Amino acid sequence: MDKREDSLPPEELMVDEDFDHERDAAPPDTELDEDDRLKPEFVRDVIDLAEAGEHEAARERVGRLHPADIADLFELVSDEDRPLLASVLGDLLSPDVLAEMNDYVRERLIDLLAPEQVAEIASELDTDDAVAIIEDMEEDEQQAVLDALDPEDRAAIQDALSFPEETAGRLMQREYVAVPEHVTVGDVIDRLREDQDLTPDFWEIFVVDPMHRPIGTCQLSWILRTPRDIAISDVMQREQTLIPVDMDQEEVALRFQKYALISAAVVDKAGRLVGMITVDDIVHIIQEEAGEDILRLSGAGDGDINEPIRETYSARVRWLVANLGTALVASTIVGLFGGAIEHMVALAALMPIVAGVGGNAGTQTLAVTVRALAMNQLTDSNSWRAVWREMKIALLNGGTIALIAGSGTALWFANPGLGGVIAAAMIVNIFVAGVAGVAIPLLLDRLDQDPAVASSIFVTMTTDSMGFLAFLGLAVASGLTSL
Amino acid sequence: MDKREDSLPPEELMVDEDFDHERDAAPPDTELDEDDRLKPEFVRDVIDLAEAGEHEAARERVGRLHPADIADLFELVSDEDRPLLASVLGDLLSPDVLAEMNDYVRERLIDLLAPEQVAEIASELDTDDAVAIIEDMEEDEQQAVLDALDPEDRAAIQDALSFPEETAGRLMQREYVAVPEHVTVGDVIDRLREDQDLTPDFWEIFVVDPMHRPIGTCQLSWILRTPRDIAISDVMQREQTLIPVDMDQEEVALRFQKYALISAAVVDKAGRLVGMITVDDIVHIIQEEAGEDILRLSGAGDGDINEPIRETYSARVRWLVANLGTALVASTIVGLFGGAIEHMVALAALMPIVAGVGGNAGTQTLAVTVRALAMNQLTDSNSWRAVWREMKIALLNGGTIALIAGSGTALWFANPGLGGVIAAAMIVNIFVAGVAGVAIPLLLDRLDQDPAVASSIFVTMTTDSMGFLAFLGLAVASGLTSL
Repeated sequence: MDKREDSLPPEELMVDEDFDHERDAAPPDTELDEDDRLKPEFVRDVIDLAEAGEHEAARERVGRLHPADIADLFELVSDEDRPLLASVLGDLLSPDVLAEMNDYVRERLIDLLAPEQVAEIASELDTDDAVAIIEDMEEDEQQAVLDALDPEDRAAIQDALSFPEETAGRLMQREYVAVPEHVTVGDVIDRLREDQDLTPDFWEIFVVDPMHRPIGTCQLSWILRTPRDIAISDVMQREQTLIPVDMDQEEVALRFQKYALISAAVVDKAGRLVGMITVDDIVHIIQEEAGEDILRLSGAGDGDINEPIRETYSARVRWLVANLGTALVASTIVGLFGGAIEHMVALAALMPIVAGVGGNAGTQTLAVTVRALAMNQLTDSNSWRAVWREMKIALLNGGTIALIAGSGTALWFANPGLGGVIAAAMIVNIFVAGVAGVAIPLLLDRLDQDPAVASSIFVTMTTDSMGFLAFLGLAVASGLTSL
Repeated sequence: MDKREDSLPPEELMVDEDFDHERDAAPPDTELDEDDRLKPEFVRDVIDLAEAGEHEAARERVGRLHPADIADLFELVSDEDRPLLASVLGDLLSPDVLAEMNDYVRERLIDLLAPEQVAEIASELDTDDAVAIIEDMEEDEQQAVLDALDPEDRAAIQDALSFPEETAGRLMQREYVAVPEHVTVGDVIDRLREDQDLTPDFWEIFVVDPMHRPIGTCQLSWILRTPRDIAISDVMQREQTLIPVDMDQEEVALRFQKYALISAAVVDKAGRLVGMITVDDIVHIIQEEAGEDILRLSGAGDGDINEPIRETYSARVRWLVANLGTALVASTIVGLFGGAIEHMVALAALMPIVAGVGGNAGTQTLAVTVRALAMNQLTDSNSWRAVWREMKIALLNGGTIALIAGSGTALWFANPGLGGVIAAAMIVNIFVAGVAGVAIPLLLDRLDQDPAVASSIFVTMTTDSMGFLAFLGLAVASGLTSL
């Protein structure tokens, strides 16, 4: 595993000055902080230059950035500044930059462009990136752009748009390399050298049968390391992971992750090769999908800080209203014990603790279960084991908390009975929370519902209601107070 | 963008029967459900065969699976069945399978093996995978394994272990391809064909200067498409993203994602090439890091369903105790208004609603902010804008909820005053929730604390306390009730 083995011995090397020179001209990290984020000073400077009309200076500074950083620049400046920035930077706002940009930010920028401009941008991108830009447009604008595209690109993009959003058909690019199985490694290399229209970025080539069905995949490194006269079919790997064109992007992402894929062939119903998905298009989906659950659990909708306020409001308020409804249940239960509280008002002060800690325990279990489901770690094979596991943990947690809360209350209120009641209520509620936290998402998943979306409302309702019911109920039952 | 352009015209093709035949022999998807999860029946069958002593049959069925699926199989069966399964499957439990396996599950399996066996497994893996297996072992066992390794492998692994956990130094593999800048494309191809010790999987080669510092990167596709006599230095890309060997893995993941990297050179302090990280090693980190926040926010620790119960318990109970402490604050506030509640017990029934909905609104904002911070979308450039945005959303949400809760209460209790009080309290609490939900994580981030870990405790404490204070305080201030 010695690293030197892979590099020629140093003595064979020679230095070439102007390369060193050019290397120094590589993009300066100085505009970025240690987390690869654009420094606030830089962002401010650029805007200042733009507003001061020093467009050349602004372009000069931004021009040294990677497209992904230019995209970030647009996301970091305010809505108001973006059109100005766009006009100042001109063609620095390249197709690559737009492809890297946050959907909401890009949408608003695209609205400023003429259909012809959008069409020109789209034609420079791979299908998947072009589609990402066009799919969010209004119906009529979309048509205008499609009309402005040359027939070949239009066909490819319309084809892509014919697949449902968030499926492999939308994600895939139509640009890939496929060869018949009888060709030799030499043939392939020669073809790659001749064909100048090829997509620049590909990592594997696909070997197809006469029906254009993929029968094998070949990493470029294998081709490079094989003598020219060997048949490609002897180099390729037959076990390959194919992506159905209608597969949901979350499944595609999980498949890429599970099998550590760099690229994969996309096939239609008939098993014919229709496109290619590369891992770099998947990485941001993995990040999105994995991050989505936290937003769904909290009912924060898309949770994108660039989302228009109107949309954010309607996404969140719906959730809060639902929460208001479930809170009524807990509230009604408390209402039933109005008398008990009047006789012993300390109950009113203590009951939020029982409900709160229980809710917290429920959220812990819920988060773990939702993650495990999202990562395909929980199946019918081990779900009962998971429930059983959470029960044991809940009893341990409940016992510990009961001990602390119980003794604390007994001392604080000089009332051992009250301490016993809160201790018992804690054990009950934390146990119920644990069971609800794992059972509710599993149930929703079994019903093909997204466990992340609805679970937390049910779990919170359960833990609140059970917290009040157990605590107040036990207080009455134990004769501490009366209704 | 027509796909045909990249494949030779069909008439050139010829069919080869036994290829089709071999293709049919590819691993059957029949063991997997539509989500690429092993079917429960299959898992049960394998265990039944193993317990019935039909080892050949068991091996035969499992042998057709992808290593990642064999790893899943071990995760899906119970702790008790794993040793049996391991002994039955024998060498089907390959290094690749172990590399794919959940850390906790693997750890317990490794404990069953002799150091020599572990060493043999490690020597077959790339450094990064070997390290992943060895780093979790006990000090003494680890030493025993290292002793059993041949010197070269031991040096590479000890070198890796010398870097802190979760850094690029642990992630990188020492196997990569580096060439001096003066060689031609032909030289490179010849070398790749000759050198049989090369790592099989690489997607780019690195061009280094005499000091072994990377000065450029070259995708294999560029090499394949360039005539042999061209200098590699004319093909390579000089703008490259280098990974410092001590960089945290979360930053590495963000960098891979941001710049859509397939592989990247890892450099030491002196800028010398010391290793390579490939995207397939990063993908699961992106998934982990993105999913971690939900677990941290809820205080669920690692949140792995395979984690030993003892560890899960201690991780979660700490959080619940902290929560118990913060709940005391809210509880104390309620205590202060004991008299008010005695005079008007309806307050006790309504106050959980104000606190609950406020807490929910706070969690929404919190989730969005934590995600945005994790994805480097929030910097000093736009954090004030984010706070301002959340304030506006909070006012919209607060207004809506106030209207519903207020009118509902006024009608229900036939008490307009009470309706007005709960409406006002809702607006106050939801606004406070919004501000706390964005300000607290931003503040923690500014203080270099992980915003996901501590935020939710503070936010919940704020919304609970403020909910009770606003509601009960206004009830008293408005003369509805008295202390």
